[in-house]
Formats: sequence, structure tokens, C-alpha cells
Amino acid sequence: MQRRIGVYPGTFDPITNGHADIIRRALHVVDHLVLGVARNDAKGPLFSTDERVEIVRDEMQYLENGGAERIEVRAFDTLLMKFAESVGASIIIRGLRAVSDFEYEFKLAHMNAHLAPEIDVVCLMTSSKHSFVSSSLIREVASLGGNLEGLVPDHVLKALQKRFARP
Amino acid sequence: MQRRIGVYPGTFDPITNGHADIIRRALHVVDHLVLGVARNDAKGPLFSTDERVEIVRDEMQYLENGGAERIEVRAFDTLLMKFAESVGASIIIRGLRAVSDFEYEFKLAHMNAHLAPEIDVVCLMTSSKHSFVSSSLIREVASLGGNLEGLVPDHVLKALQKRFARP
Amino acid sequence: MQRRIGVYPGTFDPITNGHADIIRRALHVVDHLVLGVARNDAKGPLFSTDERVEIVRDEMQYLENGGAERIEVRAFDTLLMKFAESVGASIIIRGLRAVSDFEYEFKLAHMNAHLAPEIDVVCLMTSSKHSFVSSSLIREVASLGGNLEGLVPDHVLKALQKRFARP
Amino acid sequence: MQRRIGVYPGTFDPITNGHADIIRRALHVVDHLVLGVARNDAKGPLFSTDERVEIVRDEMQYLENGGAERIEVRAFDTLLMKFAESVGASIIIRGLRAVSDFEYEFKLAHMNAHLAPEIDVVCLMTSSKHSFVSSSLIREVASLGGNLEGLVPDHVLKALQKRFARP
Amino acid sequence: MQRRIGVYPGTFDPITNGHADIIRRALHVVDHLVLGVARNDAKGPLFSTDERVEIVRDEMQYLENGGAERIEVRAFDTLLMKFAESVGASIIIRGLRAVSDFEYEFKLAHMNAHLAPEIDVVCLMTSSKHSFVSSSLIREVASLGGNLEGLVPDHVLKALQKRFARP
Amino acid sequence: MQRRIGVYPGTFDPITNGHADIIRRALHVVDHLVLGVARNDAKGPLFSTDERVEIVRDEMQYLENGGAERIEVRAFDTLLMKFAESVGASIIIRGLRAVSDFEYEFKLAHMNAHLAPEIDVVCLMTSSKHSFVSSSLIREVASLGGNLEGLVPDHVLKALQKRFARP
Repeated sequence: MQRRIGVYPGTFDPITNGHADIIRRALHVVDHLVLGVARNDAKGPLFSTDERVEIVRDEMQYLENGGAERIEVRAFDTLLMKFAESVGASIIIRGLRAVSDFEYEFKLAHMNAHLAPEIDVVCLMTSSKHSFVSSSLIREVASLGGNLEGLVPDHVLKALQKRFARP
Repeated sequence: MQRRIGVYPGTFDPITNGHADIIRRALHVVDHLVLGVARNDAKGPLFSTDERVEIVRDEMQYLENGGAERIEVRAFDTLLMKFAESVGASIIIRGLRAVSDFEYEFKLAHMNAHLAPEIDVVCLMTSSKHSFVSSSLIREVASLGGNLEGLVPDHVLKALQKRFARP
Repeated sequence: MQRRIGVYPGTFDPITNGHADIIRRALHVVDHLVLGVARNDAKGPLFSTDERVEIVRDEMQYLENGGAERIEVRAFDTLLMKFAESVGASIIIRGLRAVSDFEYEFKLAHMNAHLAPEIDVVCLMTSSKHSFVSSSLIREVASLGGNLEGLVPDHVLKALQKRFARP
Repeated sequence: MQRRIGVYPGTFDPITNGHADIIRRALHVVDHLVLGVARNDAKGPLFSTDERVEIVRDEMQYLENGGAERIEVRAFDTLLMKFAESVGASIIIRGLRAVSDFEYEFKLAHMNAHLAPEIDVVCLMTSSKHSFVSSSLIREVASLGGNLEGLVPDHVLKALQKRFARP
Repeated sequence: MQRRIGVYPGTFDPITNGHADIIRRALHVVDHLVLGVARNDAKGPLFSTDERVEIVRDEMQYLENGGAERIEVRAFDTLLMKFAESVGASIIIRGLRAVSDFEYEFKLAHMNAHLAPEIDVVCLMTSSKHSFVSSSLIREVASLGGNLEGLVPDHVLKALQKRFARP
Repeated sequence: MQRRIGVYPGTFDPITNGHADIIRRALHVVDHLVLGVARNDAKGPLFSTDERVEIVRDEMQYLENGGAERIEVRAFDTLLMKFAESVGASIIIRGLRAVSDFEYEFKLAHMNAHLAPEIDVVCLMTSSKHSFVSSSLIREVASLGGNLEGLVPDHVLKALQKRFARP
């Protein structure tokens, strides 16, 4: 029997309930899960890398059944496969919501198999009630003051409201 | 640390090198893998259930690194989720090759989550060199005498040639 | 102001909660809705046309807000556009769940525009929680004794159980 | 019988014959149609919001059968659902041309259902002869001096030629 | 300079204006075009192989610019790539209408590259006004007496009417 | 018999083994092939137009069977169809890898048919082992120091390493 370490990479700008759902299920597939927060500074994220790591960590402490102890949150700015190797992971976790996700993931999975054949990419399907939620749509709706209850964790809701508060 | 049992279901009519590739990688994700051969008699398979179980078992003994010892081949004709529960599995393995696979799998994953929320569906991407291989295309080409070397295991090749031999 | 009559066609074999969701929303778009149950005898439906009309009618009487009075259920076996003309409809309602639905509907909408340019095809998106439910998947799961609560109306559940009861 | 107000939102940068086709058909579905021109200043549109509103209004006056009297053109920069509520609309009209449109619309429709469940999203299929026309492709071809006759209204053609005239 | 022979395979049950459009453009790509009518008797075609060959030949004689002299119509029931080799073809012509066509063609192109690497598969895009026309939809509409003018050649229209005439 | 001139347009930033594969097969379809390097300065390419033309030319000299003599490499910044006309081409070559490519190409093919109906767009399927390789993914992986052997020609590998060398 093998101890399996997985990496779930993302920008998490911000983390959504869709991400949280994937994380919960990823914990069934691996013994230890590293949430890799992609630095991504060039793209001008809404929250800084430090803020995103902080927000993800906050969210993770509410995981039931000792989930929190099996999770680690880390920023990275290298090639994903190098990051995965550096934390001893043998599995990359990806969430799939839609056909366009699939195409991109397919391309990425093949590139990753070229870069590090010994690491497997494992895709989990986002639950249907979260399949329309993406961080970019969340940012757009938040910037216009739309109601996001139920789509992101409560403290993310507050962080978004603060960020977009009209003075 | 948890012992993970997975089910990889299929008709395997016949097993292809694409299936074999998924099986090899599934062994990285689970500790014990049950290959579930769907009975599927109503659809008039090319090989009978017994033949398909036999062919899959033959193929499995060539797995390197003690893979064979962690694999079991079984026929089933119940609901997939009931079969998975009956063998103690917590993970269903599915292979994805193309967008249309994805749509079907998405629908199925959601139905399965409804039927047995405690079992997770995990998708692995078929390697690019096998992405065009499906059992139905194999059957069609074999029936017309086309060369399938490299697409199916050697003993499947022979079984196909025998089945379609012109008297 | 115009009185709008719509047709929502389907095989309804059986009607699902996804259909019911589309019907409820179609009543916002048209003043009078004809549910057209396609005869489809050649494909060997699970329920006969008469049974399907009956089941759909049963389901419709539970519609709130006087919805039931604005609905009519009818079988048809002609060209959809001729049926629509015969009931005075100017709108065809279709539900979309997935990319493959979309492609088929696109093709059909263009063919229908060729056949009857004065009738518009209007597509409604199935709500995310029903996006994985199709009549064919329902039939398959029901035939294997899977639990379909919440996916089809209660009396459909009973009709399915009766149909697949093991003697 | 209900008076139905619809909103057809877009950037309309510029309006194309594909948009005009959707508008003509939307008038069969609703009694009053508000064309919502999204301000979208951040993305650096080719025509300013005022110009786009003007161009759309010009185009609308050529609508036959009293269509023009049932149409209103307005700019907006709030959340679409708030804009729709502010004009008393119960229906959002969207045009679908391709699979990628569909995916985006699906996501949006579900988000909109979350934000304002009492407003329905209705999709119309763009006619096949306009299915390849998008405002972005129009802008690109216009910038390179390509012939766009038949793809945009005549006065849009002139506005584009003026905008891209080489001094 | 090379003389290029192409094969355009299909069931042509019946030939549509979409096929005719692809044929006209295929003549720009190859010097000689063999229309391969797949025998396909097992699937119970509407028109027999002989009838389909006859109907395609009739249609071909109306090709302008000496096109007819560069075309040959032949039935085949072997593997496509063997048929192509037997007529000396180096190019297979395929028409693409939609995403699902594309996926199937992709799979087929890769299988064909495996079977006969020296023969290239060339895809032409069906013109937008024919993108919704398929032989199966034509058969379905014809069986219900729908108007197909402009979608199939005139003599095909007559053949369909005769076939579906109610006594 | 006709002499066929084709244009294979692209940004080639940089050229990949996937492009090289399409070029090799395009030479079976046309007698003379013009590689059109789109100037694309506005998008801030990694390599300048001159560099890209140079790199493509370098790669082309290794083509076997006198392929190099039938190829010409040229930069262009006009409408593709005007460029094609200016070099006497009757065929545009495009490579297809995935569904999203297909959608874009479909739209483009129809726009091009509108702009220059006498020029045909011909699509070739990228071989399965290159189907995950795109210039943008190559640039991303190269910028992070990933191993790209086998995905781009050797001299492109060196050019990428030089470009992203850390001082």
C-alpha cells in the first residue's frame, strides 16, 4: 500500500465552493493534498498571492473529518510538474466543469505526461450545482455588486465585498 | 492511510491498448483494481461475456511490477454503483478520449453521485497515441481485415482474426 | 399584444423533473403551451403513447398558479412543424442540457426554419441540478433498480417500479 | 395574457446582420424589447457607447411591421439582471451561434438564475447564413479592408470604412 | 507536378446539396475524384446500393466546367483505405459540418493514418447554408412529407416523394 | 491538370513539430506551398517577424524529397485572402487539433468564402502525437524551463533556451 500525495493547482482568485467541493473529494483519492496557489502576478490577480494563500488556508480549517490535517497550502511559480516533484506528489488533481475545460485539460495532461511521465493527472467532475461557477465569473459579478451567497465561502464573500466597496 | 479499491468498468469488446494504458495508470491511483466486464448481452457483443473476461485476464498477466496481483477481473450485470459497493470500491475509474466521451461521462458522474454519493468518479486521460482507438472502431476495421497491430494486444489480434476468418 | 401559443415536443418516455422544470419556465414565455407527445412507436418506447400522455397529464395537474389551465397534452405523429401549425403555435420550446443537445437542436432549428419560417424555435437552459437527467438514462437506471427519487415525479417513480418489477 | 418585456444585451461593437436577425425574431417572443448596450469601456471598444447606441437606433428604424415602436435602445453598466429588473423585463434574449457560445451561455444562464430566479433566459439560434459573423471578426476584417457587404447593415459598413480610412 | 486522385466516400442515402457542394470544391483540390458509395446493406439503407450509385451519377452529369469528366462513381464494401489504394488515390476527401462530425473524423483520420500512412485525409467545410442538412434528417423529413426543396437535387426530391408516396 | 498553389498561414511563434507535420502533408495536396508568417506585431510575439521567418526557413531546408524547393516563406500583414490572391494561391491550408480549433476554423472558413469564394480552405488533421502541442503552450513551458525535446525542431529548442536564459 502506497502513500499518495496529490497536488491541486489553481489561481484560486478567489477560491469558490466549486473548488472546495473538488478538494473534499480529492481527499478521498490521495492521502495528503498540496493546494498549489499559482503566483500568476503577470495577469494582475484580484487578490495578491499572499492574500490568496491566506484565504485558502482559512477555508481549509473548516474541513470536517480531520481533512485539514491532510492539507497543505503553498504558493508556486515554477512549472507545475517541477512543483509536484518538489513536494513528492505522484498525482495532479484537476476539476472539470465543461467541454472547454476538458479540451484545455486534455492538452495539458498530454504536455504534463511529456514533461513528467511518472506523475498522473486525475480529473474529478465538479458537482452539477457548481458547474457554472468560475473564479472569473465570480470576480465579474462581485465587481457589479451581485449576490454570490452559496457560490463562495462566507469569508470570501466578505473579502470580495471589501475589495469592491464603493467609497 | 487508506486502502483504496477502484472499479474500472467497460464492455471490453475487445480490450484495446487504450484500455491497457488506463489500467496501468489506474494502478497508481488505487491499491486494488477490479476490472468490471459489463455483461451487455442485449447489445449482441462480438465476444461473449466469458470470452471477454478470459481475454482481459490473459492481458492482465503481462502487467509488470506485480500489477497483476493487484487486479481482479469480474463480470457484472447490475447497476455499476451496486457492483462497486459489492466489491468495497470507493473509486470508479473512467478513461476520457474526446469531447463526446466527456459529455457522457459528466452525465454519468452526476447520476452516479446521485446513486452513491460516497463513491467518487475519477477520470484519466487516454494517452494521445491511443486517443483514436475505440472498441467499436476496432471491431469495424477487424471485420474488414484492416491491420490493427499496435492498437490491441497481440492475443486480441489473433482472437479478432479468428473471429472474422473467411471460410 | 399578442397571444402566444407554444409547442414543447418530446417523447416523454418518461417525463422527468428536467422536463417539468422546462415546462414551468415555458409558461413564462408563452400564454398557452401544448405538450406534444411524439408517438415514436417504431423505436419501441417503454411506455405506450397513451400511457405517456396519461403520465404527462397527471404530472401537469400539480402545476401551481393556474399553470394547468394553460397547458394541453396531445400525441402527434406528423412533422413537428405541421403539428405546431395545426394547433396555431408560433413558438417551439426546446430544452438544452449539453453541447451535444445544442448541436442537434441547431441542426433541427435550421431545418425547422426551412420548413416553417414563421415559427420560431426558442431554447431554454435546463437548470444545473437537472442537467444530467435524460429519459434514456432514467430508463436504464430504473431497469437496474437504481434509486431515482428527486429525478422524476413520484407517480413516474411508481410507474417505473411497476414496469420493472421482478416477478 | 401577459405583456412580456425582454432585454437583448450585447456590446454591439458594431451591430451585425446576425444581431438584426435575432432582434427580428425576439419581437415574436416578447411584446416590448429593450436593446441593452453594455458600456464595456474597459475593453476599449471600437465605437464609444454613445456611437453604438446611435448606430443601433439607426438600424432599428428600418424594422418592418411596426417593430421599431416596440423597441427601445439603452446603455447600461450595471449587472445585467439589475438592468433587466429596472426595465421590468421577465425575459433575457440571447443568440446562439456555436458550441462555444453555448457553453458560455449555459454558465451565464445558471449564474443569472442564481441572481434573479424570476427572470428567464431564452436562447434563439442565429440563422445559418449568419452563424459565422461575430462583431470581433467584423472588426478584424474591417481593419484590414475586407469586404463586409451583406454581413452588417449598410450604414454600419460606412461607419467602419470611415473609422479605418487610411489618411 | 503530380496528378492527384481523390476519393470522397459516403453512403449518399440520398445525396444532398451539401454533398454536391463538397464535390464541387473537391474538384479544385484533386484532378480526378472517385465518389465511393459505401454498400452498407446491413444498416438497411432507404435506397439500394445500385439506386444510390444511379442517383449520384445522374446528379454528377449536371456539373459545369467539365467537372463530370473528372468524376467516377463506384460502390465499395471493403475497408476505405483499401478502396482508395485500389483506385490509385492519395487523398481522401471528407466534409465537416459540426463539432460532432469533427470528433468522428478526427478519430477516423488517425485510424486511417495507421492503416495507410501514405494517404492523406483532407477536410472541407460544408458551406453554412448546408450545414444543417444530413441524409438522415432528409430521410426523416421526407418520410413525414416535409418540403425539401433547395436541400436536395430535384431528381432526388422526386425519388424521395416516390419512395414515401402514400398509396 | 492544374498546378496548385497553397498558403499555410500562421504566426509560427515558434514553429512546432505539429506545424512541420502539417507542412509535410500539405506538400501532398499542393504543388507549391507558401508559408505565410503573420506579422502580428500588436500581440507582442516572442520572436520578431524577421526571426520567425528565419526560423521557419531554417526548418524547411531539412525537408526530404525535394520538399524544400516547393516551399516559400513570406511575411504578410494584409487580409489572408488578399495575401493568398497575391501569390496566386487557390488553396488555404489549415491544421486542426481540437474541437475549439474546429469552431474557429469553421467561422473563418465561412468568412473567407465570403471574402474570396474562389479560394478553398482545406483542413488537415494534426497527427495524434502532436495534437497537444501549440505555440502558446510551448512558449509557456519554455519560459519555465520545461523540457520540450521532440515537440519542436532542435534549432527552435536552442532559440527558445537562448531567449529564456536566466542571466
